[in-house]
Amino acid sequence: MTEVDVRRKILADNASAAESLRESFRASSTLVVNLISSPGSGKTTLLEATVRALKGRLRLGAIDGDIATERDADRLRRAGIPARQILTGGACHLDARQIASALESEGDRLAALDVLFIENVGNLICPTAYDLGEDFKVALLSVAEGDDKPFKYPGIFARAAITVVTKADLLPHVDFDIAAVCDQVASLNPSARFLVTSARTGEGMDTWIAHLEEALARKRAEAPVPAGARV
Amino acid sequence: MTEVDVRRKILADNASAAESLRESFRASSTLVVNLISSPGSGKTTLLEATVRALKGRLRLGAIDGDIATERDADRLRRAGIPARQILTGGACHLDARQIASALESEGDRLAALDVLFIENVGNLICPTAYDLGEDFKVALLSVAEGDDKPFKYPGIFARAAITVVTKADLLPHVDFDIAAVCDQVASLNPSARFLVTSARTGEGMDTWIAHLEEALARKRAEAPVPAGARV
Repeated sequence: MTEVDVRRKILADNASAAESLRESFRASSTLVVNLISSPGSGKTTLLEATVRALKGRLRLGAIDGDIATERDADRLRRAGIPARQILTGGACHLDARQIASALESEGDRLAALDVLFIENVGNLICPTAYDLGEDFKVALLSVAEGDDKPFKYPGIFARAAITVVTKADLLPHVDFDIAAVCDQVASLNPSARFLVTSARTGEGMDTWIAHLEEALARKRAEAPVPAGARV
Repeated sequence: MTEVDVRRKILADNASAAESLRESFRASSTLVVNLISSPGSGKTTLLEATVRALKGRLRLGAIDGDIATERDADRLRRAGIPARQILTGGACHLDARQIASALESEGDRLAALDVLFIENVGNLICPTAYDLGEDFKVALLSVAEGDDKPFKYPGIFARAAITVVTKADLLPHVDFDIAAVCDQVASLNPSARFLVTSARTGEGMDTWIAHLEEALARKRAEAPVPAGARV
């Protein structure tokens, strides 16, 4: 096999594992959100704020991918939701088989959720190609990273259903043209939603939560579970 | 070939191409610095400040790796140095053959430099494994990215001869424990140098420039070029 053959086979195997995941998430009407960004854009912090906003109303859980350390899953467990850490060793992304095996080891705990967040390895490039059975991808971009990123990393911004600009509280201290970033995202993906948030001040969190709730309602409407099967 | 065989072959081919590059950089006493960080940590901004500090004293040049756009090379050309953009398409890192071919297309322009900066694709993971014939790697970490990154991305911080903390001007506005980051880096790589910088205020730039000049002096002492061959 050539390098190209190997890559093609890896992605084909992944796609088939992702399809099985998607089917099982459809059966349980679990909304699955795949969060992708650079290291340090604030994925875990956004999820902590999301848990604060939705706890008691929805059953949330998370799978965290990292090269090393259980730190992110620890933070989310402290926030009060079940979280499973996948340590990839050196690997730069999560794949569908890792998700399937994490769900299996957790038994029913992650299967019976309303929303499962998959916090991918911090990397704006490699995770883009791997379908994890999610309903949609979310790209995060912190205002400290600069306003040229969508055009420099077009793959993820073209594929993400929502782009979330984070750390908006830093805007007075950095050069970041929100309108320019919004234009770049719109030209890569005309149907993408675009949010500006700060987990620190709470800016934009209502809109983020509303998007999640709408998406969950849509998913339930599309694949209703049998009466009595939901708590 | 299995996936593991393919990966082993790719790295072996890369190592041999990197060795040829290293030999030619030794012959010209060109110091080669491979800059690796997340997207938006400030690699190009650090290089712009470096050019301002060293222009007229040293012949500098750059090779910029990006998924898309010529933006970084354009910025460095505007700063006044020759810069060659490598567009990787989707690839998440530069490899030694791309560097060799960029040098070839530039003819003598990049070959006769005192210092060649290679600004790798914005990615804290994948570029780590690819030797580009450099003298050393530099890892950049912006204070906005959080102080848990060395332990979460140990590969690059273990291999980088210098870790440069950037955007120190944002310290009053973010949670970032410099001592904790310094300890993490020291435990991963006891001989690494650790700098705190701000391209905006100039903090730490003197030390960065001094490190580059020392490294260049060491390289020239190790492989002196024939008398008269240097301008």
